[in-house]
Amino acid sequence: MVSCGARIHIRGARTLKQIESRLQAVRGDMRADNLDALLVPRADEYLGEYVPEHNERLRWISGFKGSAGQVVVLVDRAVIFVDGRYTVQVRQQVPASCFEYQHLIETPPLAWLCEVLPVGARVGVDARLHSLAEYKTLQAAFDKAHIELVAITHNPIDQHWHDRPRPVLQPALLLAADFTGEASTVKRQRIGVATKAAGADVAIIAQLDAIAWLLNIRGTDVPRLPVILGTAILSANGDLRFFTDAKKIPAGINQHVGDGVSIEDESALVSALAALGKAGTAVLLDPQGVNAFCALALQAAGCPIIEGADPVLLPKAQKNAVELGGIRACHERDGAAVSRYLHWIETQVAAGQLHDEGVLADRLELFRRESNELRDLSFDTISAAGANGAMCHYNHLNSDQPGVLEMNNLYLVDSGGQYPDGTTDITRTVVIGEPSPEHRQMFTLVLKGHIALASAVFPRGTTGVQLDILARQFLWQAGLDYDHGTGHGVGAYLSVHEGPQRIGKSVGASGGGAVALLPGMVLSNEPGYYKTDCYGIRCENLMITVERADGMLMFEIITLAPFDARLIDVSLLSADELAWINQYHQRVADHITPLLPAADVDWLLAATTTLG
Amino acid sequence: MVSCGARIHIRGARTLKQIESRLQAVRGDMRADNLDALLVPRADEYLGEYVPEHNERLRWISGFKGSAGQVVVLVDRAVIFVDGRYTVQVRQQVPASCFEYQHLIETPPLAWLCEVLPVGARVGVDARLHSLAEYKTLQAAFDKAHIELVAITHNPIDQHWHDRPRPVLQPALLLAADFTGEASTVKRQRIGVATKAAGADVAIIAQLDAIAWLLNIRGTDVPRLPVILGTAILSANGDLRFFTDAKKIPAGINQHVGDGVSIEDESALVSALAALGKAGTAVLLDPQGVNAFCALALQAAGCPIIEGADPVLLPKAQKNAVELGGIRACHERDGAAVSRYLHWIETQVAAGQLHDEGVLADRLELFRRESNELRDLSFDTISAAGANGAMCHYNHLNSDQPGVLEMNNLYLVDSGGQYPDGTTDITRTVVIGEPSPEHRQMFTLVLKGHIALASAVFPRGTTGVQLDILARQFLWQAGLDYDHGTGHGVGAYLSVHEGPQRIGKSVGASGGGAVALLPGMVLSNEPGYYKTDCYGIRCENLMITVERADGMLMFEIITLAPFDARLIDVSLLSADELAWINQYHQRVADHITPLLPAADVDWLLAATTTLG
Repeated sequence: MVSCGARIHIRGARTLKQIESRLQAVRGDMRADNLDALLVPRADEYLGEYVPEHNERLRWISGFKGSAGQVVVLVDRAVIFVDGRYTVQVRQQVPASCFEYQHLIETPPLAWLCEVLPVGARVGVDARLHSLAEYKTLQAAFDKAHIELVAITHNPIDQHWHDRPRPVLQPALLLAADFTGEASTVKRQRIGVATKAAGADVAIIAQLDAIAWLLNIRGTDVPRLPVILGTAILSANGDLRFFTDAKKIPAGINQHVGDGVSIEDESALVSALAALGKAGTAVLLDPQGVNAFCALALQAAGCPIIEGADPVLLPKAQKNAVELGGIRACHERDGAAVSRYLHWIETQVAAGQLHDEGVLADRLELFRRESNELRDLSFDTISAAGANGAMCHYNHLNSDQPGVLEMNNLYLVDSGGQYPDGTTDITRTVVIGEPSPEHRQMFTLVLKGHIALASAVFPRGTTGVQLDILARQFLWQAGLDYDHGTGHGVGAYLSVHEGPQRIGKSVGASGGGAVALLPGMVLSNEPGYYKTDCYGIRCENLMITVERADGMLMFEIITLAPFDARLIDVSLLSADELAWINQYHQRVADHITPLLPAADVDWLLAATTTLG
Repeated sequence: MVSCGARIHIRGARTLKQIESRLQAVRGDMRADNLDALLVPRADEYLGEYVPEHNERLRWISGFKGSAGQVVVLVDRAVIFVDGRYTVQVRQQVPASCFEYQHLIETPPLAWLCEVLPVGARVGVDARLHSLAEYKTLQAAFDKAHIELVAITHNPIDQHWHDRPRPVLQPALLLAADFTGEASTVKRQRIGVATKAAGADVAIIAQLDAIAWLLNIRGTDVPRLPVILGTAILSANGDLRFFTDAKKIPAGINQHVGDGVSIEDESALVSALAALGKAGTAVLLDPQGVNAFCALALQAAGCPIIEGADPVLLPKAQKNAVELGGIRACHERDGAAVSRYLHWIETQVAAGQLHDEGVLADRLELFRRESNELRDLSFDTISAAGANGAMCHYNHLNSDQPGVLEMNNLYLVDSGGQYPDGTTDITRTVVIGEPSPEHRQMFTLVLKGHIALASAVFPRGTTGVQLDILARQFLWQAGLDYDHGTGHGVGAYLSVHEGPQRIGKSVGASGGGAVALLPGMVLSNEPGYYKTDCYGIRCENLMITVERADGMLMFEIITLAPFDARLIDVSLLSADELAWINQYHQRVADHITPLLPAADVDWLLAATTTLG
């Protein structure tokens, strides 16, 4: 899936009053601290893609419920910056009497601030809410503009958020060895060795999925991301201190994780960082993944700091045999649910039922839940009818009103599940009624690219930037393209967007496109085509990078659900491409038929029948 | 062409004595300067790929005549570092009693030195012979190893080289507007604007081809590279000071280049750099292209230095319409010569004449000379029979004895010419006698990759790293690859290896793989396959990046000579690939037939007949 959104509520008079009074309270604190501006990013101190309810500071101050944005509060004005997908939503949720609206990409908040603020202005920044890398960017830009960056010690929002939700208090799940395939002790020791090799005594492990992977635990602290909130310090000998809410850690933890793990209260982190300084400990930290507050605390304590990639990143990305077994299994389960859903849509449409996108998304979730294995969705379902499919980050929950299936147009559904044995992510595009020749041509061009990437064979050392053109070449020949990456990494019952690997035109902000693909890495393959105001097409499977007998690498496709054969123009396929789609559909039939209720079997067999 | 070599002479007793006495003399100077080591790179102060005879310092000290290598002279030993293609040659040319042999890549000289030298050792470095970037690398490594880098003011080799050849003294050629398409005044003004945009008052233009391009002059100072030696300082207003041997500059220069160009003696450069410092002039220089001596002189003079890409690099790479017209014309002329040569080989082989690689290369040069337009070869011809073709940097001049054509094996010839209207570079692989099924399979896999790259369509912003896989994909599927880049830039009657663009697996040392291709750039397309001790295959055409009506970019193929149809297994080609080769051969026939003597016409028509 390309990205996600969040639920919408229409603002009323009560909301307006609330926001006015919140802004007033925050501005009171700003005056007391002599601040001319306050930055409010969406991120919380864990810097992840998903933010738990109790850390939705941007929502509290503005009312905005989208998944990306930034607020700047000045003494006499406030501005909210959102990207193209939220230009309508922001006006519904954020009162224009309190906030100006700006485009996050066209008018970046940092550049805007440097333009607007006078020399000598003071900008309050909560260093917990910015990565070290971001913080340095802020610092450099402010220095250049002669603006003072003030690292605030108390966030005014936290001071005034009296009805702040309580953090989730569900106990952590201790994930068994038959899901993880590697004991925490062994993981911690090899990451410890890598930490030492990087020249450090300890590493700050701040990414929530990295901690969950190291300890073989999962949680429900964050929507869509099965982790426990906290921060870890890993020693070169493999010992780990996990700063978290100890109430969430179940009794069997010691036996589960093995020796050398201590659970400490999150409030003890600051003094622990300070103590590292006293001991002269060299600390490895990832400037993209560790918040600036931790980094500054270590710096202030006098720790030698080694900036480098989170040492968990690459090992976590290379799934072991047990994880891969689980991933394959959950994809069969997930493919069965998606297949049943696709059949259900066809039946409904045939019966004249043109459901809305919300009903559709809910029905898909229900099919997934029927396995009794679904723990969560892996992201908010993108259920997009007709022209809504052309917005590749569409979320019906962000619209005033969800769209409705439209006859003789397309329906795009991008969805995934979190299962104890793996994480799924699949997009299928189907026709509602009859496809036009253009629908079939465009779908087939996208599918040809999907097949070319799925069929790639490449030597070790090959990166995602090198592979990307395989997926785009047929669209490019036709003068077309899509404005998103082609593939992202996927975790094992962890984040649906997992680094470091990436398939895309450019290396990307975090450098993922330049990472060589390695056996065991799971990647999405999701080329698309989007015709504004008309329709959207995306074909997405997940695949595992595997080694061939001769040492070359290739992909094993793990997603199992039919592509809509009505949208395939066989005359545009080469013999190899036709063989690929027929073999793939045969695999879908072989693996999924046994998992289906009798009522769906005939449909699947028809949907996967040999083409050409 | 992939790379090149140089002429060989077997060393005798006289050479040994010479080298012993040269080493002794140099060591005398080293002792006087208290130096523990002296670096002797192959590069001269112009840092180009080709080095004029009078600057072959590495050859003088060691006897080595290869095109790449490095010597380190210590007080009691000396080492020569060469790469894999010269391991035999170095032992023939460089006396083992004076020099140890090391592998340039496996044992890099810098690492070796840091390992061998004691703390506090002093290493003499002639800063003129290293780019600023290289010099910084040396400095950093020496600092870490506590070794002292001594920038020597007098190179001992220059002191003792009494029979040093005189520089070439041919007058510069003033290249007419119907070849260059843009007056020097206009070029200098727009590069001046770019210099200013980079925040500088002047730019050091040190690359010889950049100076030649700016002034629309050519020369014969360097083999294979039609330039005049010297260094230029360009002001933001477009004025240019060219420090060179004024004797080579013909009388009409002022009118040719327009106002604002002064010709000054090369010896005046040092004081000119010092004067820039006094005036507080901000200087733009390319750390990859400007030697460290100039950079240090500017630094010492107190100039603010702005490091950035040579501002001529990108404009020179984007050929204008007049240059492109010339390039197309010279490729017709060159294609006719190559076609006649291929016919001649076939006739000779049919008559039982299996010539050696030297005879073959000379015959090809003769065909090129018959046009009366050839000014030089663009590089030493790679004429490689049978197994010699498997060494992709092979040069028969580096062998004890050139190879001889072998029946039922392949012959690979990579060659090019310098013409007043352009530079060519073409590789053809032909069968001598009957090809084996393996020859045909491998040739066809290479050709399929060549066709895929030649047929690419891509949006602006696409880089060589993204395109590279198109050429390799079929070899990769078969578990094969080639160990060189896929494409390099080519100049217009300038360097056959021209930056910044590049097509390859990785970005490359100079970053060329990350440069977005632009209309007017000329690139080679040269995938290959090399089976050690058996044969080599390479298919190389040059192509121009052109814009399609819809704004997408694509390639116009400009090289015009047939591929050996006997080596094409049509059953492995897709319908599109077959159409490509037939259309290409039709174009070759259309353009080249009119340029051929009657005796060659029937052969060309047969060689370009429709396949499939």
